[in-house]
Amino acid sequence: MDIVIKNGVVLTLNSSKSIFEKGMIIIENDTITFSGEEHSASIPQHSKIIDAKGGIIMPGMINTHTHVGMSLFRTLADDTADRLRKYLFPLEEKFVTPDLVYWASLYSLTEMIEGGTTTFADMYYFEDKVADAAVQAGVRGILGESILNFPSPDTKEPYGGFENTEKFLELYSNHPLITPALAPHAPYSLNMRNLKKTAHLADKWDIPVLSHLAEMPFEIKQIAEEYGMSPVELYSTAGLLSKRLTAAHCIYVNNEDINLLKASGTGVAHNVSANLKSAKGIAPVLQMASRDIPIGLGTDGPMSGNTMDVVNLLGYTAKIHKFDNKDRTVMPPAKVIEMATIGGARALHIDGKTGSLETGKKADVIIVSTESTAMFPIYDYYSALVYCASPRDVNTVIINGELVMEDRKIKTFNKKETKSEAEKIVMNIKKELGNF
Amino acid sequence: MDIVIKNGVVLTLNSSKSIFEKGMIIIENDTITFSGEEHSASIPQHSKIIDAKGGIIMPGMINTHTHVGMSLFRTLADDTADRLRKYLFPLEEKFVTPDLVYWASLYSLTEMIEGGTTTFADMYYFEDKVADAAVQAGVRGILGESILNFPSPDTKEPYGGFENTEKFLELYSNHPLITPALAPHAPYSLNMRNLKKTAHLADKWDIPVLSHLAEMPFEIKQIAEEYGMSPVELYSTAGLLSKRLTAAHCIYVNNEDINLLKASGTGVAHNVSANLKSAKGIAPVLQMASRDIPIGLGTDGPMSGNTMDVVNLLGYTAKIHKFDNKDRTVMPPAKVIEMATIGGARALHIDGKTGSLETGKKADVIIVSTESTAMFPIYDYYSALVYCASPRDVNTVIINGELVMEDRKIKTFNKKETKSEAEKIVMNIKKELGNF
Repeated sequence: MDIVIKNGVVLTLNSSKSIFEKGMIIIENDTITFSGEEHSASIPQHSKIIDAKGGIIMPGMINTHTHVGMSLFRTLADDTADRLRKYLFPLEEKFVTPDLVYWASLYSLTEMIEGGTTTFADMYYFEDKVADAAVQAGVRGILGESILNFPSPDTKEPYGGFENTEKFLELYSNHPLITPALAPHAPYSLNMRNLKKTAHLADKWDIPVLSHLAEMPFEIKQIAEEYGMSPVELYSTAGLLSKRLTAAHCIYVNNEDINLLKASGTGVAHNVSANLKSAKGIAPVLQMASRDIPIGLGTDGPMSGNTMDVVNLLGYTAKIHKFDNKDRTVMPPAKVIEMATIGGARALHIDGKTGSLETGKKADVIIVSTESTAMFPIYDYYSALVYCASPRDVNTVIINGELVMEDRKIKTFNKKETKSEAEKIVMNIKKELGNF
Repeated sequence: MDIVIKNGVVLTLNSSKSIFEKGMIIIENDTITFSGEEHSASIPQHSKIIDAKGGIIMPGMINTHTHVGMSLFRTLADDTADRLRKYLFPLEEKFVTPDLVYWASLYSLTEMIEGGTTTFADMYYFEDKVADAAVQAGVRGILGESILNFPSPDTKEPYGGFENTEKFLELYSNHPLITPALAPHAPYSLNMRNLKKTAHLADKWDIPVLSHLAEMPFEIKQIAEEYGMSPVELYSTAGLLSKRLTAAHCIYVNNEDINLLKASGTGVAHNVSANLKSAKGIAPVLQMASRDIPIGLGTDGPMSGNTMDVVNLLGYTAKIHKFDNKDRTVMPPAKVIEMATIGGARALHIDGKTGSLETGKKADVIIVSTESTAMFPIYDYYSALVYCASPRDVNTVIINGELVMEDRKIKTFNKKETKSEAEKIVMNIKKELGNF
């Protein structure tokens, strides 16, 4: 059934950032067929009418980097030094099964939908289970099986991720919501031969690439010692920098690295909250943005960023870069909302398909209610979204033309059953933790 | 009626940070008479039983620095350079009346209660109207009339704030919720004679002092030029540093300043979110905390920090100081929750009265629900509060033994009427802004 959204302010996030004060969106099948002022629309017959009740109608938010399968470890060992190698890898080895990944992913997707996320980029293990959960939830995903130089929960062989990716591709090709990707873990966890193999396969299979890049001080040191270059230069040498790649973090990048990112068309996933929490640093986002490198926002995994919504990242993104640049004018709210939507789509190289409310684009639309106490008064819509909104203000979510959440009720799967399954797994983890 | 809270985890925030897993709180009149495990309590007859439904029972949060009367300007001219002198002061001159201050304050108090704040420290104009709103709302307040060297909305005379303070004291002495304070605006907006006069009157009237201090680069420069000292040294010379004072911001403090703050017993209000948003900087909180200077959290005004809840400050506080100190272990969640509760009480010099759930303290208690999607799983309560909770998880608020919010419903005043009055004022401001 066609959907008409009316009685709200439309923030289009098109190239001229048009705002329609008495706006209307018309969706036919999976596509936006009208985005403009209500008075100039002709409403199709037999359509479902959604009343935005004076709220904000905007593109769904895009989470450009996460690991949704980790949600059941959230709040475990936060703030421990070197948690990655002391806790994360051993935890994953012990507990991560296809069953855990499915329910943990569906649990994360609950939170992502409730927070207005319509597309996510994910890299983890048993990624086909992440895909199953995303299809069940009705959320758009670019999903990659992790490829690493050591055994992981889903393969006994180093670099078994290649084989897993091939299997994943067979399961999910030409799916309206799921795009399989290659996911080389990081510069320090693949050798040069396999980095090059990844680049080669990406071209051969014509699929995107997701990777961690220039995230940690030890990474910079190790790559410098091993190759005499920066992680970004290494990826350039391996042929990985391209319009296929979305590189997560890019905290430690120099001017030459930024030139390489720019020249190659690589997208960047900026994970501000997780990067601060782990005391890693602040990516030079303004410097990269000034070169027109596509930048989106990412939560990182729920052990790193904790909450799975993009809304909570908006304030951090605005404030941190103002602080970091000692200038309150450099990161206005409109720029932040751009990163959360069309910027994210550009960083994932899918801006032809989604990221703005424009005729012809896939219908990934959310309504943000302005009824909560914090959302009044509103002198500026972008400012209210960035500095005042909570993920819980998101009222309605439409993805690929399908109504996924209406009036805070998820329509695509049973939220209660998902929590109950997640609880069983968490009880088991808690029981075993004593012996851990 | 006495109140019993059961079926929740009690975080006491006492000196040994005791946690009672099957905890109970008993309140008789305005006072906590039991805080411990349920099995060791004897429940008074005819008491109201509140079921925490497995949630977190903890001390109410303390907002150590704000300007609640500014809520109706929120999202106006965010991110403008030198907004204080270009927008704030002129806006206030034009629009700030007793009526606006009352409704704007009550509107802010809606949000503060909904976010679990039970005590706030405020400095503004027509502070008696802030007090009226706080009494109506049932929220504990330390409230100060601003004293400045130029005319302000509530006085045509420079330093008219002294006279206003005297009148305010007559209206609100020995009130169970309201403590009037002296509020010298800042080192740059009072001359030495009047800074000294403030210190003298604080002793004479035996009341607390609230002030901005060491907040801005221009302030440091101006005070150095005028007096050849730092703002903190200036306040020391004027006799203002003491156990009466809560100094907001303290971003630009050197070692000698920190020694002066420590020796005097001055409390510090840390406004992390507002300070980042205005690109001012990060106060050296760990350095001050290591000297045992009492530190609480503050939202600052709704034009500066935008949201009026302490919950949204928790994640910022944890993450920013880890980042600033390049060490993820230095600001564990328990330390952050301490600042939000008993630390805030210490910074306001009222820790004998509130800030923790201990027998004999005033009953300022909140229940944080753990039912939302982001609040699962919980391996660590402090971590869940700091990294996952939303102000909207706060379910129930008790202040001074009175039930102020139950199951998200405010009991002390009409929230709808408050919003409707606020809307009228905002419509008028929007109309006039064209000529502004």
